[in-house]
Amino acid sequence: MKAAIFVEPGKMEMREVEKVRLEKPTDALIRIVRACVCGSDLWWFRGISQREGNTPAGHEAIGVVEEVGSEVTDIQVGDFVIVPFTHGCGHCAACRAGFDGNCLNREAGLVGYQGEYLRFSNANWALVKIPGQPSDYSDAMLNSLLTLSDVMATGYHAAKTAEVKSGDTVVVMGDGAVGLCGVIAAKMLGAGRIIAMSRHKDRQALAREFGATDIIAERGDEAVEKVLALTNQAGADAILECVGTEQSVETAVKIARPGALIGRVGVPQKAEMNTNELFWKNIGLRGGIASVTTYDKEVLLQAVLKGEIEPGKVFTQRFDLEHIQAAYDAMDQRTAIKSLVLVSEN
Amino acid sequence: MKAAIFVEPGKMEMREVEKVRLEKPTDALIRIVRACVCGSDLWWFRGISQREGNTPAGHEAIGVVEEVGSEVTDIQVGDFVIVPFTHGCGHCAACRAGFDGNCLNREAGLVGYQGEYLRFSNANWALVKIPGQPSDYSDAMLNSLLTLSDVMATGYHAAKTAEVKSGDTVVVMGDGAVGLCGVIAAKMLGAGRIIAMSRHKDRQALAREFGATDIIAERGDEAVEKVLALTNQAGADAILECVGTEQSVETAVKIARPGALIGRVGVPQKAEMNTNELFWKNIGLRGGIASVTTYDKEVLLQAVLKGEIEPGKVFTQRFDLEHIQAAYDAMDQRTAIKSLVLVSEN
Repeated sequence: MKAAIFVEPGKMEMREVEKVRLEKPTDALIRIVRACVCGSDLWWFRGISQREGNTPAGHEAIGVVEEVGSEVTDIQVGDFVIVPFTHGCGHCAACRAGFDGNCLNREAGLVGYQGEYLRFSNANWALVKIPGQPSDYSDAMLNSLLTLSDVMATGYHAAKTAEVKSGDTVVVMGDGAVGLCGVIAAKMLGAGRIIAMSRHKDRQALAREFGATDIIAERGDEAVEKVLALTNQAGADAILECVGTEQSVETAVKIARPGALIGRVGVPQKAEMNTNELFWKNIGLRGGIASVTTYDKEVLLQAVLKGEIEPGKVFTQRFDLEHIQAAYDAMDQRTAIKSLVLVSEN
Repeated sequence: MKAAIFVEPGKMEMREVEKVRLEKPTDALIRIVRACVCGSDLWWFRGISQREGNTPAGHEAIGVVEEVGSEVTDIQVGDFVIVPFTHGCGHCAACRAGFDGNCLNREAGLVGYQGEYLRFSNANWALVKIPGQPSDYSDAMLNSLLTLSDVMATGYHAAKTAEVKSGDTVVVMGDGAVGLCGVIAAKMLGAGRIIAMSRHKDRQALAREFGATDIIAERGDEAVEKVLALTNQAGADAILECVGTEQSVETAVKIARPGALIGRVGVPQKAEMNTNELFWKNIGLRGGIASVTTYDKEVLLQAVLKGEIEPGKVFTQRFDLEHIQAAYDAMDQRTAIKSLVLVSEN
């Protein structure tokens, strides 16, 4: 089978590798239709985080079930599915509480979604069935469905953990695909005002299309001043932190009104943080790995299928597996908001 | 007037001082009936936090309104009131959001509740009227009403920010008056299991009386093991952190199930914290200064008046102003759970 391989920082390659196969009775084998490149992949692509070379890559896809293990009863061969980056079992305490991204029975570190086939664990509950077959859907709809494997669910997680409610003034930090999906999520949850922080014209435009009412291009203290000016000096009701840098988290605290919640989904760059500022302003810090399957099944899949949201618009460039290097380069150089990887024609 | 004065670390004195008076049209002058000593007062009493000497002390009381400023219309002379340590205006963004402890119009640092009279700012909204007069109530009821100026509301804040809900397994860290009130609060919010961490027999007994179903006397890793054993290795749904030490916060993170919230009300001892552990387990860190007036008006005053809760049981020793040194010593040496200070006979 063909698969995208991370060779070393800055270098991706399509290689012919041994076809993956079922290993556990709870596995499914998925034939991948579409995959994509995530902003979080850039951490190791750029060599900022350590990762072993010559390993398969990717953690977002949609595909068709090719084979299932003996304990997989709710998913059948031939099902068209969202393939979440999470692997919730559906019955542990974390999954039951709606945090399947932290499933207590998960097999961690499963990647390789950018390839022709994928072994997927905890398939019975974690996979999300899409009605019909890939050929039933438009190109745009397939793209939106693909975002339900990660970025749309992750943006939604930021909004849910920040407890966005009707009428809230929400600030979305980060104009990557996750931040833009955070704008969609804030709107879904009824935010009255959505302030998107973005310095790029194309992303600003998409943020507005997704529901942003205000754009702030500044960063740091200037951004803080702008948010305070927009909120009568009170600060925002909810902050979606979709960046993860130290500056971004610090800014989030400064623009939060007392009692506000910060929902963060940007992988944290720095562990140590002054949490006293949170205490003295009663600001909550939440967030983490998204509950992909939970959100997809609860609300996101239907919202996409009904055309109420179109998160697939974050894909601004498309590639095939052979051009995987270009797909990563486009993300790395910010020429694409998000790179689509076409693996098979349905 | 007579007032308790902080002389220097370890030394309190009753002194005759000039009677306080109204300074702003939004002030009220309160004749104090009962006051008390707070666990947080021990920080400066013990010289751990800096505080100027020869200054008035105390931030918890019930009393009778003696005089009001020209803009105070909802409170009348003669009203019997809870005198919260907070001073919410009732109309800023923080107060409207239910976080009156962080009122944007508050006058910070107002103390001196351990004295015959008190100048109280933002009196119109922040004071909480109690029906009738002090003489209408039993000694036990007066004590319970007194806890509504701080500790009962603070314990409730821990439970509210930890979002305790029906059936939850809740861990309460800290067996001081606030922790014990946290047990009451967890029960009010429907917790199914309340695990109190306490090493003292008298406090363990009171925790059980207030609703604790389990007691853990261990600390650190041993305490973590015990909680995990009690929760089928999943961790607790909500943690009320009523201590504030580094060890306590670290333990709270370790015993939280993925997605759980830590509601903290213990004044943080250490600012810097590794927040990555929160991220990777989706644990929320919330809490801070309690919303005293909000909670009293919403639910706590009625719960006390109906006899549904009896937080006044945390007062295990009583003193008058003349013996203010002994009142602090009893808290410092842990011979009292909480020291009551009788200021006037109704």
